[in-house]
Amino acid sequence: MTADYPQHELPLPPMQWNAWGTTAAATTLPQPVKDLLGQVLGVSGEQIAAPAATQVRLSPSRLRASDIAALEAIVGTVATGDGDRLIRAGGKSTLDLLRRRQSHQDAPDAVVAPATSGQIADLLRWCADQSIAVVPFGGGTSVVGGLDPDAGGLRGVLSVDLRNFDQLVSIDPVSAQATFGAGVTGPRAEELLGAHGFSLGHFPQSFQFATIGGFAATRSSGQASAGYGRFDDMVTGLRVVTPTGILDLGGAPKTAAGPDLRQLFLGSEGTFGIITEVTVRVRAAAPVTLHEAWHFPDFATGATALRAVAQQGGGPTVMRLSDEAETGVNLASPGKIGATDDSVSGGALAITTFEGTGAVAQARQELTAAVMRDSGGRSLGAPRGQAWEHGRFDAPYLRDALLAIGVGCETLETATTWSNLSALKAAVTTALTDAIETSGSPALVLCHISHTYPTGASLYFTVVYKCDSNPITQWQTAKAAASEALVAGGGTITHHHAVGADHRPWVDAEIGDVGVRILRAVKDALDPAGILNPGKLIP
Amino acid sequence: MTADYPQHELPLPPMQWNAWGTTAAATTLPQPVKDLLGQVLGVSGEQIAAPAATQVRLSPSRLRASDIAALEAIVGTVATGDGDRLIRAGGKSTLDLLRRRQSHQDAPDAVVAPATSGQIADLLRWCADQSIAVVPFGGGTSVVGGLDPDAGGLRGVLSVDLRNFDQLVSIDPVSAQATFGAGVTGPRAEELLGAHGFSLGHFPQSFQFATIGGFAATRSSGQASAGYGRFDDMVTGLRVVTPTGILDLGGAPKTAAGPDLRQLFLGSEGTFGIITEVTVRVRAAAPVTLHEAWHFPDFATGATALRAVAQQGGGPTVMRLSDEAETGVNLASPGKIGATDDSVSGGALAITTFEGTGAVAQARQELTAAVMRDSGGRSLGAPRGQAWEHGRFDAPYLRDALLAIGVGCETLETATTWSNLSALKAAVTTALTDAIETSGSPALVLCHISHTYPTGASLYFTVVYKCDSNPITQWQTAKAAASEALVAGGGTITHHHAVGADHRPWVDAEIGDVGVRILRAVKDALDPAGILNPGKLIP
Repeated sequence: MTADYPQHELPLPPMQWNAWGTTAAATTLPQPVKDLLGQVLGVSGEQIAAPAATQVRLSPSRLRASDIAALEAIVGTVATGDGDRLIRAGGKSTLDLLRRRQSHQDAPDAVVAPATSGQIADLLRWCADQSIAVVPFGGGTSVVGGLDPDAGGLRGVLSVDLRNFDQLVSIDPVSAQATFGAGVTGPRAEELLGAHGFSLGHFPQSFQFATIGGFAATRSSGQASAGYGRFDDMVTGLRVVTPTGILDLGGAPKTAAGPDLRQLFLGSEGTFGIITEVTVRVRAAAPVTLHEAWHFPDFATGATALRAVAQQGGGPTVMRLSDEAETGVNLASPGKIGATDDSVSGGALAITTFEGTGAVAQARQELTAAVMRDSGGRSLGAPRGQAWEHGRFDAPYLRDALLAIGVGCETLETATTWSNLSALKAAVTTALTDAIETSGSPALVLCHISHTYPTGASLYFTVVYKCDSNPITQWQTAKAAASEALVAGGGTITHHHAVGADHRPWVDAEIGDVGVRILRAVKDALDPAGILNPGKLIP
Repeated sequence: MTADYPQHELPLPPMQWNAWGTTAAATTLPQPVKDLLGQVLGVSGEQIAAPAATQVRLSPSRLRASDIAALEAIVGTVATGDGDRLIRAGGKSTLDLLRRRQSHQDAPDAVVAPATSGQIADLLRWCADQSIAVVPFGGGTSVVGGLDPDAGGLRGVLSVDLRNFDQLVSIDPVSAQATFGAGVTGPRAEELLGAHGFSLGHFPQSFQFATIGGFAATRSSGQASAGYGRFDDMVTGLRVVTPTGILDLGGAPKTAAGPDLRQLFLGSEGTFGIITEVTVRVRAAAPVTLHEAWHFPDFATGATALRAVAQQGGGPTVMRLSDEAETGVNLASPGKIGATDDSVSGGALAITTFEGTGAVAQARQELTAAVMRDSGGRSLGAPRGQAWEHGRFDAPYLRDALLAIGVGCETLETATTWSNLSALKAAVTTALTDAIETSGSPALVLCHISHTYPTGASLYFTVVYKCDSNPITQWQTAKAAASEALVAGGGTITHHHAVGADHRPWVDAEIGDVGVRILRAVKDALDPAGILNPGKLIP
């Protein structure tokens, strides 16, 4: 952080308070992108002023001296400075970033960083007794309002930073299984496992900053999900601290001993308890990675090919398909957006990678290539696949650079069955386009398939538009239109970004009244005082 | 059923009331088996008398005429005859079969067979209002007391037979997904799917009689789980009728919209609601099946090989490994038990099969064979794998023939991590052996790995012993000893047979106090009157 950042007592999370990632890695817009935006959206490229951290007025802490003393007795440092509170006051959605441009902002009333599950249990009991809400904080990468400092009618909000749960608790190399503290970040998990010859293989776009606990609490899904599975597939055990006790789940790889309670805490977003340890299956680090990109005449043909590969099984580690619009602007290689590429003029670009021993990776590549060719694909060889891999964590930085010149750029994702994919894609594209156009801007709507399953796939939309004078309402309106289209069109409201505050109005449509009643019953049993992450997930 | 079976109003389930399967398929013991039993257990081979169905005195129905009238108004036929009630009075565990040999038996007070989810909703509302317990009945194959006619302190028990939910409700061939009524049996599901070129690929030993709804309610796992997944992996959607409303879950292949509530009803064993429809992913019927059997010098070496294959991924459709004892008695080929086979004198036998297109099956077989060879395996070629497949549903018939001459033969299964497999196997073997020997009989304890995962595997034990004069207590004592050993040794209490009444005392050890509290909270929210399958699953 720069010198003009407000004072803080606890170490700061690595990401900037008002943008994705670190200052060092922040990017500027390449000229071809600026040219493209000028043509399509009519933006000038001039930077729009935003408040510095020291200029923001935070809601004052509502905690009393006696509260601080009680919390200190449990956990040591209780940080109430603006610097500690500001950086944990929200996530990294476009909505969050727009709010960061306001002069007054809400924030948690204090921040603590406990070091043990026992301390968290004590914290939760005290908070329940004292009517203080608790918002768990991992990497701070939520894009669904999961970190909103919502007191839910209670008298304050405590941010519980899990940064001290930063260890590889244990590893069982024979069983290819490891237990991590919830605060371990993606890169740190790979580093810790790498020392033992293993990899987790979970690479969501938030990988560089997000934590193991966050992956679990939000049902994260990484870019290599075709090969390594979603995060919820990887989890074999959980330790969860609830206000009414600590729960240890898992042990056996699979069981028929009743409902799988792990699946109740995966995706629980801090509303049932705080996940402090996660046991995951790991894989031997792959000695070989093969890349192959494919060109299809159009998205529909490509989607049929991906479906055939997914239904055959034993295919790629990564498999993605950009639609014509996304292929046209080269979004799969952020470094080359807007640049001309003769090999894929028109049509749809697919990326595949294959990991494993040489024999395994090669066998999978050959079986996949045969299906791709039979389905109308033309191989583009390895380089474009490598280029995608190289740039795969860069897109969020680009979004910051766009927002700084008044260009909104947000993503949303869903999943549906293969048979419903085209209709849903069209409906969401129309809803987004109509809503943005109604606000007075053209809309550039791009889409790719990022995760495939035998029965269906995800659709990941990127929308680029010119911000109007009330950009928060502008995006909320467009997002609501897209959400209604998703629900009406048979898609899920979120494939891998969780519910948070932003998707909560559509949970009822997803699981029905009886489903909502179940969530509330579990919540009441574990958190009768309602302190855990109010306003998220549960309607 | 034979002419001496009590009268009945509803069609009878296909299985015999007091033994596995149909009368036509019942088997007698081959002479080599009789010889083996004579040597090892000292049994004479003489048949032990058991009561005929007409000789059994059932607990009289507690329902009043007004109850019958009310139920008839909802569902039509309300069967209270001994024939209808007797056959639905229990499952097919050894404990069930021993109870069937008693002169007095408990039974549900009446049987109904509703045809729609709406009728079931009406039934449940009426039962809740009238304090009548409900036990759902599918194929009647439970081996954990899941069908015990336990009124749980209420004034009666209604058996709800799902036989009329016998349809393929819909099929989406593009998405490779199908919706079945809960009462469709395994073979019928394959027949219905086969007409569309698909297969479900779920082949538990109960396949011939068990139902889709039962597979879901008990977290069943089939013999082809290595390739097709467990049943809980296959389910993409559920319709569940609860006393407080109907719940429809699923739609998207995967979602991050909160906890996966499907995983709360999978394994719920009729205690939260009655599953009436199940949506499953299906596969294109495999044009090719390749078989290969392997011989290992010992079980430990074979287990290490299976582990390497499971952790490599993309391997067999079926993968099993018998320990030295099981290999020695040739249990993998029930038709050849006790016969000499020079190719596997000593050591441990593994079976693998590979399904798919020719190219896929062959690639998988080659990748697997390389690992098997590197791990000390010797290929025995295809025939022994084919023999296993041919006899794979026969073992339960054998058990009946054994029990008829006073030989107990029961199975139990668990799962644990690869690193804990040997220790757990030894502990359970010792516990079973000691308990049976204490009862005065030698114990033949056999074991195989039937299901493999990257992080661990199942262990499936078969124990053969001479029944004593109080065989129910004898087996309950041995089972309790094995269960204690499982829990103490880090295994799950059940890998694919569910909890039922029999494993219920060990659920608390599996999920802890907080886990039990969650189950009770969900139960109270959905079934406040406590009518649904009392005495099962939830402590």
